[in-house]
Amino acid sequence: MAKKTTRKSSAQRRSQRASKPAGKAGAKAKPAPKKPVKAPPPQPVEAAPPAPAKAPKYATAESMAKAQRSISVSEFFAKNRHLLGFDNPRKALLTTVKEAVDNSLDACEEAGIAPVVEIEIAQLSETHFKVIVTDNGPGIVRRQIPNVFGQLLYGSKFHRLRMSRGQQGIGISAAGMYGLLTTGRPVRITSSTRGRGKAHFYELQIDTRSNRPDIITDTETDWDRPHGTRVEIELEAKYQRGRQSVDDYLEQTAIANPHVTLAYKAPDGREARYEAGVKDLPPLPREIRPHPYGVELGVLIKMLQDTRAKSVQQFLTSEFSRVSPRVAKEILATAGIRDNARVRSMGGDDAKAIYHAVQKTKILAPATDCVVPIGEEQLIAGLRQVVPAEFFTATTRRPAVYRGNPFLIEAAVAYGRPEGEPAAAPAAGAGDGDEDDSDDVHAAHAKAVEQEQQEQGQLARLIRFANRVPLLYQQGACAITKAVTATNWKSYGLAQSRGALPSGPLTIVVHMASVWVPFTSESKEAVASYPEVLKELRLALQECGRKLGQHIRKTVRVRQELKKRSYIEKYIPAIGEALRDILDLKDRQVDKLCTDLKTVLERTRKL
Amino acid sequence: MAKKTTRKSSAQRRSQRASKPAGKAGAKAKPAPKKPVKAPPPQPVEAAPPAPAKAPKYATAESMAKAQRSISVSEFFAKNRHLLGFDNPRKALLTTVKEAVDNSLDACEEAGIAPVVEIEIAQLSETHFKVIVTDNGPGIVRRQIPNVFGQLLYGSKFHRLRMSRGQQGIGISAAGMYGLLTTGRPVRITSSTRGRGKAHFYELQIDTRSNRPDIITDTETDWDRPHGTRVEIELEAKYQRGRQSVDDYLEQTAIANPHVTLAYKAPDGREARYEAGVKDLPPLPREIRPHPYGVELGVLIKMLQDTRAKSVQQFLTSEFSRVSPRVAKEILATAGIRDNARVRSMGGDDAKAIYHAVQKTKILAPATDCVVPIGEEQLIAGLRQVVPAEFFTATTRRPAVYRGNPFLIEAAVAYGRPEGEPAAAPAAGAGDGDEDDSDDVHAAHAKAVEQEQQEQGQLARLIRFANRVPLLYQQGACAITKAVTATNWKSYGLAQSRGALPSGPLTIVVHMASVWVPFTSESKEAVASYPEVLKELRLALQECGRKLGQHIRKTVRVRQELKKRSYIEKYIPAIGEALRDILDLKDRQVDKLCTDLKTVLERTRKL
Repeated sequence: MAKKTTRKSSAQRRSQRASKPAGKAGAKAKPAPKKPVKAPPPQPVEAAPPAPAKAPKYATAESMAKAQRSISVSEFFAKNRHLLGFDNPRKALLTTVKEAVDNSLDACEEAGIAPVVEIEIAQLSETHFKVIVTDNGPGIVRRQIPNVFGQLLYGSKFHRLRMSRGQQGIGISAAGMYGLLTTGRPVRITSSTRGRGKAHFYELQIDTRSNRPDIITDTETDWDRPHGTRVEIELEAKYQRGRQSVDDYLEQTAIANPHVTLAYKAPDGREARYEAGVKDLPPLPREIRPHPYGVELGVLIKMLQDTRAKSVQQFLTSEFSRVSPRVAKEILATAGIRDNARVRSMGGDDAKAIYHAVQKTKILAPATDCVVPIGEEQLIAGLRQVVPAEFFTATTRRPAVYRGNPFLIEAAVAYGRPEGEPAAAPAAGAGDGDEDDSDDVHAAHAKAVEQEQQEQGQLARLIRFANRVPLLYQQGACAITKAVTATNWKSYGLAQSRGALPSGPLTIVVHMASVWVPFTSESKEAVASYPEVLKELRLALQECGRKLGQHIRKTVRVRQELKKRSYIEKYIPAIGEALRDILDLKDRQVDKLCTDLKTVLERTRKL
Repeated sequence: MAKKTTRKSSAQRRSQRASKPAGKAGAKAKPAPKKPVKAPPPQPVEAAPPAPAKAPKYATAESMAKAQRSISVSEFFAKNRHLLGFDNPRKALLTTVKEAVDNSLDACEEAGIAPVVEIEIAQLSETHFKVIVTDNGPGIVRRQIPNVFGQLLYGSKFHRLRMSRGQQGIGISAAGMYGLLTTGRPVRITSSTRGRGKAHFYELQIDTRSNRPDIITDTETDWDRPHGTRVEIELEAKYQRGRQSVDDYLEQTAIANPHVTLAYKAPDGREARYEAGVKDLPPLPREIRPHPYGVELGVLIKMLQDTRAKSVQQFLTSEFSRVSPRVAKEILATAGIRDNARVRSMGGDDAKAIYHAVQKTKILAPATDCVVPIGEEQLIAGLRQVVPAEFFTATTRRPAVYRGNPFLIEAAVAYGRPEGEPAAAPAAGAGDGDEDDSDDVHAAHAKAVEQEQQEQGQLARLIRFANRVPLLYQQGACAITKAVTATNWKSYGLAQSRGALPSGPLTIVVHMASVWVPFTSESKEAVASYPEVLKELRLALQECGRKLGQHIRKTVRVRQELKKRSYIEKYIPAIGEALRDILDLKDRQVDKLCTDLKTVLERTRKL
């Protein structure tokens, strides 16, 4: 999309716009168009200072200055669309569905409505798709619809500390922008807050240069729903099932959200419906104020400038969580500041004193009812749906804090094959194998060894969730992955090569719940590696690992048995040959000798 | 930083601000403060429509609407600082130096000045540091200094297609913002464009709510430099040498930029100086217009609306690269549109027709002098500085295109140990080992095997560059890493476990040069996985791999020799024991037999 603005033409467009009388467009277009007005008229290059340029083609401070200007956040993300999860057509389809569904689930839960979300994807041409997501949420009031869907960085979830799927106010507008840029088609929104058979209908397209919605249609339409919202986005996309697909996302969403009903209609006509497994909504997470420990000096200074509190004590008790009047007194005493000191009278040094006093004061950890786990039971139940296994375990950690943000880690693992499946054989085989040396058993062993080795080569599957949203991309960039690969799975009896996932028939599920999940990019695909987060991840994984280790040990013993045996079987023939030469024996004798050798070696090995 | 604005207080602050007479602050504060004015006075919750909420604590469409508002780009990045590379104090120090140095190098090169950059880091307290970066660049004109350093998304490099280190107009302002938020101290800038012993001096701090600079000091000061810029930022940081450190960054920068001189003063007092190895600057990359193939339908529609061209043919030839009048005629013919058709008369269907016609028309690939490689010779020279090795090779691919953006991939590898180092021993040992079975040789072999195995366990080192800037973080998220791990290094004789880097004494260097590097985050630490980019990476790595494979094969044969031998040696004693039982031999006989066995087996193995 960068391609639309070559340096020259965009500069001209801007001054055109800026010179317009401040009409609707003019007023709307901010801040990008403003700057050029302030800028003085371009000066002739000759007037520029004699920069030590070797050739005229080189730039000077003046020529550079002329090129410097603001970039609208929409222009930025249009050019950097991969930051939002639109790097290729297949991913674009997933991201669009994801943003719409996540918003629907947030809205329903905040309004206390058991979510029923319908997802339909229609293929209009080889590369042209239409995504329709309809929910039974509270709806969106008319005046906010254009902003919510036609402006990046607009929403209700950013300026608060509360666990929710969306946080940034970017996602759904970005999906609309991507649709517009790839197909030229506007976003269509139908929303009703009080039913009566009517709904608001909008057609919007984002003006990337000003990051504001252009309203194309704004009417009322018939709608049979009492309340809810429908979003329709046309986009260039590619549909393909399997890992990282829309199907995959919906399945994992159902796993982590048993209270949600999802009705899905795929472009190939298939229909899937995930019924809510539980009637009750998860408890509504509480919104909290920042915790003093997480606040930095510069931020504290800013808060002192911004607060409406009169006295410093009032400031501390009103702007922070866990600061009672007593605690405030203690902080101020340590800082050497009077309780009733006026906020206005506070200087930089006072702020510094308060900042350091906070670190020295014992303050309760943040309230923990602001982060809601999925729960061990539910994690295992969900895991059972994806993978049949012989062993399951899960653990939910108590909440912790990074940069003042409460968060919580939970993990679950599934290991091995359920009873009765083929690969159970080697264990059995090894059990009586020592007494019985008949060929078919050997074959079985060989096969088992092979199978075991294959499984060893196979890396574990990792399923990641953040605030109940499946993370399908950028596994390599995710703190969750870092924690899994940094964990020493060998000590739990699994194979693992350095810096890699453990290998074997293992599935690992990890969920991070937080009032503010630190994602590594706006596409919210991976969790950033804050030390406190990594620590909790490690502890959760170790708890699961220990339980898994106990279960695994015998499996490992069996595998080693089989390995040793396979070595011997590998070398005995060579040895037979060798012995023939040395003791020059007959073939018959050699065979006999080899069989005896095996038996004896088996036995000695067992002693 | 999010913590500063609890939902309630920030709403109040905003309406306060908004209701102010539009003074400096009011005018500056956009777009955030505007919205609440539009919003109607809060309605009592009873007045809200009867949403099916189970309890009053649940939200309604109205209560949600009241909380919805704009988020300033500074607020966004302040809360998501890890997106900009400020996730922890150590990384914050690196990022700050990196952004300042990259800007200096860009400015010098654009002005045709051989860069001489001085980097000084002073430790003011345990966690409080000061970074000072001074360059001999063209300087920054006074009126632009506040914008360049005090506003996110402001710069000259975004609205153009040209290879440079910076592209987003975020980095240095973000470093200043981080410094402000962690220490409360403003950024200090000294800059001179024409010398005469004077320079502009500014103290700035960014207003995160409005994303505009607050100017604290604006004066003229004495400066002995004819031209250049100095930036001083105080920040909360941590200094630690080793991988991913400032030292690491500067060393790798010197490797990829032989024309640059860097003078570094570390907080621990150490001083390092990297002298320019070559006198000439690399050729100045040419700026280009977008290539038609990279433009999407929606973007094309937008360009048609924005262009100043009168006729469609004019539009095509003036807005795109590689579109001659002849090509334009051809496109329009295919689209069934008259050459002299007016742009204004073009509708959505015409745009669609042109879009499809473009795909059907043969158009020259983009000009390639807009991407400048480091060069095979220079890559190897650089690599030699980091790692001594027995084998080096490099390859520079011809430029390719992703989404219309020209880019170029080059790769180099260093393998093994230089002549004469211990690990050369096993090869020699294996050479004559077959004739000679004395114990010490066996010990040597055992040691060699062990050593070989250790090396096998050690993953290769990967060094990544984008537009000559070292990428030190998020290796796991990088397309370069994906390409390396996806390459089948086994076929070149290296060990590699699935989805992992190859293992062995190997160092891989990869450089991507592009008019627009698609980074996975604003911190510019990893390249996004565009299919075209992955393909070029693969091809470059395979070219190096093939050359490496030829060199490696014999090394591998030796290793296998040693492995086989070690197995035999492992089992012969057990066999001895077994034979004693079977043929009940004397110890003496057993020893003799074992020695003979070894010899025979060695021999048979060689046949």
